[in-house]
Amino acid sequence: MDEETADKTAAINLGQVEEPSKNALKEANKQRKLAEEKATKSATNTTKEVARSEAKRAVTKAPKKKIEGAALIGIDIAKEEDFSGWYQQALTKGNLSESEACFYSRDTSTDSDSHLKVGFAESGLLPRMLADSFKPASWFIWEQIRDWFDLRIKKLGVRNCAFPLFVSEDVLQREKAHIEGFAAEVAWVTHAGTTKLDKKIAIRPTSETVMYPYYAKWIRSHRDLPLRLNQWNSVVRWEFKNPTPFLRTREFHWQEGHTAYLKQEDAAKEVLQILELYAGVYEELLAVPVIRGRKTDKEKFAGGDYTTTVEGYIAATGRGIQGGTSHHLGQNFSNMFGISVEDPSAKEGEKKAAINVFQNSWGLSTRTIGVMVMTHGDNRGLVVPPRVSEIQVVIVPVGITAKSTEEEKISLHKQVDALEAILKAEDIRAEADKREGPSPGWKFNDWEMKGVPLRLEFGPKDIAAHCVTTSRRDIEGNDGKGTIQITELAAGVKSLLSSIQNDLYSRAEQVYKDHTKTITSWDAFVPALNEKNVCLIPHCLTEKCEDEIKEMSTRTDSDEVVDEKAPSMGVCTSSEKIVALTFRTNADFVIFKG
Amino acid sequence: MDEETADKTAAINLGQVEEPSKNALKEANKQRKLAEEKATKSATNTTKEVARSEAKRAVTKAPKKKIEGAALIGIDIAKEEDFSGWYQQALTKGNLSESEACFYSRDTSTDSDSHLKVGFAESGLLPRMLADSFKPASWFIWEQIRDWFDLRIKKLGVRNCAFPLFVSEDVLQREKAHIEGFAAEVAWVTHAGTTKLDKKIAIRPTSETVMYPYYAKWIRSHRDLPLRLNQWNSVVRWEFKNPTPFLRTREFHWQEGHTAYLKQEDAAKEVLQILELYAGVYEELLAVPVIRGRKTDKEKFAGGDYTTTVEGYIAATGRGIQGGTSHHLGQNFSNMFGISVEDPSAKEGEKKAAINVFQNSWGLSTRTIGVMVMTHGDNRGLVVPPRVSEIQVVIVPVGITAKSTEEEKISLHKQVDALEAILKAEDIRAEADKREGPSPGWKFNDWEMKGVPLRLEFGPKDIAAHCVTTSRRDIEGNDGKGTIQITELAAGVKSLLSSIQNDLYSRAEQVYKDHTKTITSWDAFVPALNEKNVCLIPHCLTEKCEDEIKEMSTRTDSDEVVDEKAPSMGVCTSSEKIVALTFRTNADFVIFKG
Repeated sequence: MDEETADKTAAINLGQVEEPSKNALKEANKQRKLAEEKATKSATNTTKEVARSEAKRAVTKAPKKKIEGAALIGIDIAKEEDFSGWYQQALTKGNLSESEACFYSRDTSTDSDSHLKVGFAESGLLPRMLADSFKPASWFIWEQIRDWFDLRIKKLGVRNCAFPLFVSEDVLQREKAHIEGFAAEVAWVTHAGTTKLDKKIAIRPTSETVMYPYYAKWIRSHRDLPLRLNQWNSVVRWEFKNPTPFLRTREFHWQEGHTAYLKQEDAAKEVLQILELYAGVYEELLAVPVIRGRKTDKEKFAGGDYTTTVEGYIAATGRGIQGGTSHHLGQNFSNMFGISVEDPSAKEGEKKAAINVFQNSWGLSTRTIGVMVMTHGDNRGLVVPPRVSEIQVVIVPVGITAKSTEEEKISLHKQVDALEAILKAEDIRAEADKREGPSPGWKFNDWEMKGVPLRLEFGPKDIAAHCVTTSRRDIEGNDGKGTIQITELAAGVKSLLSSIQNDLYSRAEQVYKDHTKTITSWDAFVPALNEKNVCLIPHCLTEKCEDEIKEMSTRTDSDEVVDEKAPSMGVCTSSEKIVALTFRTNADFVIFKG
Repeated sequence: MDEETADKTAAINLGQVEEPSKNALKEANKQRKLAEEKATKSATNTTKEVARSEAKRAVTKAPKKKIEGAALIGIDIAKEEDFSGWYQQALTKGNLSESEACFYSRDTSTDSDSHLKVGFAESGLLPRMLADSFKPASWFIWEQIRDWFDLRIKKLGVRNCAFPLFVSEDVLQREKAHIEGFAAEVAWVTHAGTTKLDKKIAIRPTSETVMYPYYAKWIRSHRDLPLRLNQWNSVVRWEFKNPTPFLRTREFHWQEGHTAYLKQEDAAKEVLQILELYAGVYEELLAVPVIRGRKTDKEKFAGGDYTTTVEGYIAATGRGIQGGTSHHLGQNFSNMFGISVEDPSAKEGEKKAAINVFQNSWGLSTRTIGVMVMTHGDNRGLVVPPRVSEIQVVIVPVGITAKSTEEEKISLHKQVDALEAILKAEDIRAEADKREGPSPGWKFNDWEMKGVPLRLEFGPKDIAAHCVTTSRRDIEGNDGKGTIQITELAAGVKSLLSSIQNDLYSRAEQVYKDHTKTITSWDAFVPALNEKNVCLIPHCLTEKCEDEIKEMSTRTDSDEVVDEKAPSMGVCTSSEKIVALTFRTNADFVIFKG
């Protein structure tokens, strides 16, 4: 899988993550705009580079005054104002991960500003920050995805297995295009205790080269095909770009499926079956719409024949994001690793030719969680779809005042427990929040930050009316409120959770649709991208052409400079029959028709 | 967890694993005995060392002629003759793991004998051999264990999470006793791509130091307690001893639970709850009896207060084996990592003292699978208990001869499919083996090697009698055969699987009991160990005493030499009230009474 898209989407700006005040942010943005204007006016790349780093410095120099007690009062960075700062807060305060720690070591954050000016790799931050720490609420989401997907691939005949974390340099390098794609990112173990190893050993960046020597051994006849294995594991890619929790971390969790077939058409069929399951994870579980497509050659998996992909859309940035990829590897790896069988269709007496098997590999990672957060989260924090939320319903007792007696409180708590029991008996993941101390209002905010999809409020008024008050996380204010009769509690809650799940998807889908534009003229292209759209464009799909589109559409937002280069786009627009979907990312791809 | 016991149990002898013929083995054993006798007669340690390595060489020099087609004809090393050679074959031919590969690289095994004379670490073998490759049948077993245990710890209130693979040197070293226990085994990443890292980074040998800095952050008040987290992951301990599949590999899979409590008694209670679940994994799922106990101080977890353990017994070697350990860490780590809360019992107005939390950690690894194989396997291959077997029942069509018509064959296969469907509908993991080519007899051997607990045979005679013929894997010959009426198929199979599960346990338990001896005189001790017994002995439990027992009982099997040293054992035998269970391993421990 290619995690390339991540930094395009999140566009983490190191200068903005330490909870700056809104004024500081505004000032920073102003300075950055000034610097960028300056950059735009310079004509050459070199001066633009300089201007851009000036722009960065401008942001870095912005005052970083902390809001006192910010951690207590919820999200204080607006999603539309500073997306990456918001994302950090949503994850940390929403209790999904220790994401803040991905950027700072507490050991160094206080000494000076210097660490803000350098990238993660050079900053000497604690290495334990190299990966997400999944708190139970986020790992629960991953477990839901795992269980859903695992059940379905097992039905397809895939079996789980586990292969080693380590791979030798020799084996790793056996497929040339593959190693070229990963060499720069491989982490090497060179010492054990105080002993230097004879040969350094790689940590797998993906497991093709770990597994396929075994495939060569295990596949001896066409009767051993198809071989379909999958593992749930973590891999390490030592990228030197800025990390983004869930989207780009040096260690990440995923599943990787590796299958081998006698016939290409059977392998090709599976590629799409798996892609459909990936779409299902996003659409059915995470309520995130995706478009199914095929990567351009430039963006395909290193060493593979072609790569299919599901691509999401982050409205807040107007950028696309790769969701999961299913690759057809052709015979590239089977050639290199000698995975072959005798042709079973050979007639008796004929010499049986060796056929190298056709292979697929496919991976879906915990990036799914990041995409979910970015899609649904708002300025009150996370919004977690009911199907994957560890807690689906929180029940908050209300209406206890200073005048209430101890008996009244105990009685209310007992009834709240009873409601919880009713819901749990119906397999609804419910929790009663009977914490002493915090007010109901504080609890409301707390659970909203954590994204719990449905809140039930229960107090003397509800008791009198034989109902509970409901409050949907996904709809703010009175529009999201309602009541359910206690006699109908479980059915009513189930129905409401189902509506929340569906509505989350529908709203996100509408946004995606509203921002998908069919563009046939170059003049309209960059402005459409700038309006945060996904553009369907005619495309000749050559790598040269792709490079040009990227260069021209990403170098700057200024129309003048783009116009200057426009004629060269003729290469692309001449072939109008092929449609490519273009985000402002590296992840151009062709959508599947129908 | 401490994997120390592994090599004592398996006693892998590198000279014997490459499928030598039985004659070669006998010759090798003869030579080894001669050399050992020579060793015994020499009085001093030094000469004994020399003699022992001579004995090893004798084995190494034994002819390693391969039996042609050995892979096709099943296990050809007897369990009682060469236990480690048998174990290798049982795993590989039983399709559990690529265990053979743990010892040899195919790239080097052909050039000379030289690699047989050196340990694994020095041999330049392919590093991908550093860990087990779990084929689906073995990973299925681990998934059964995971699901069973996971459900039960979740009921206790434990939640799953995931923490990074990497840990910085600073953090790793924070708890002194802990790092002393693991320093020599830590794998270090020093390079990424071609870039040398500023600071080397460790791969976790266990996750105390990875997780506890977060615990210090997350635990702010007694209301955050207990904190109970668990992760299913793999860890790396770069041991320079010989690897043994499932028992001792440099990367191994496990779960590690890490919990924090306000009160020691609550933590102590949990230690035993978990230990009981570990015993349950062995007893209920794997049909392996274990004894619950507490490790001696010398054997406890590095940095912990005390370690409880379940210990199994491998009859073939007469040695004990550590099954899983549940540690009480006391406040050792919370002191070092600053994990504290204000004392909630402080009266109002009083200064609230900080209390460092009481912690536990507990781990169960894929070694479980190795213990299962060693306990139940026989000279026909694996015997997998029904509860964890990926295939519980195999149905083999029989009675098709050269005279049978194509219609008869098709009809039989259809009926076999119907039997499979009946069983699957009742959630019995059944598979019909309709392979063309192999004879029924070949298939019988094949499934026996793989340890499938129950075979059904179905042919014209069975059809006429409206029944299926049953054959239990755990009972050889006619004693293990029977019939089930087709109308009773699912119920009959369920009942039989249940009997197999119970009988496997009962037999193993009887063997364990028969080999557990209460010994109160030193004279009887070493002979009892030599007869492959587990000995209950009086023990003062001091480390000095433990060292002496080990030294005197493991140095040699010759009675004379032991007697010579016997007087010094007075230190131990003087305190007869404490009873310790002693295997011929490092894993001495005190059993729990009742």
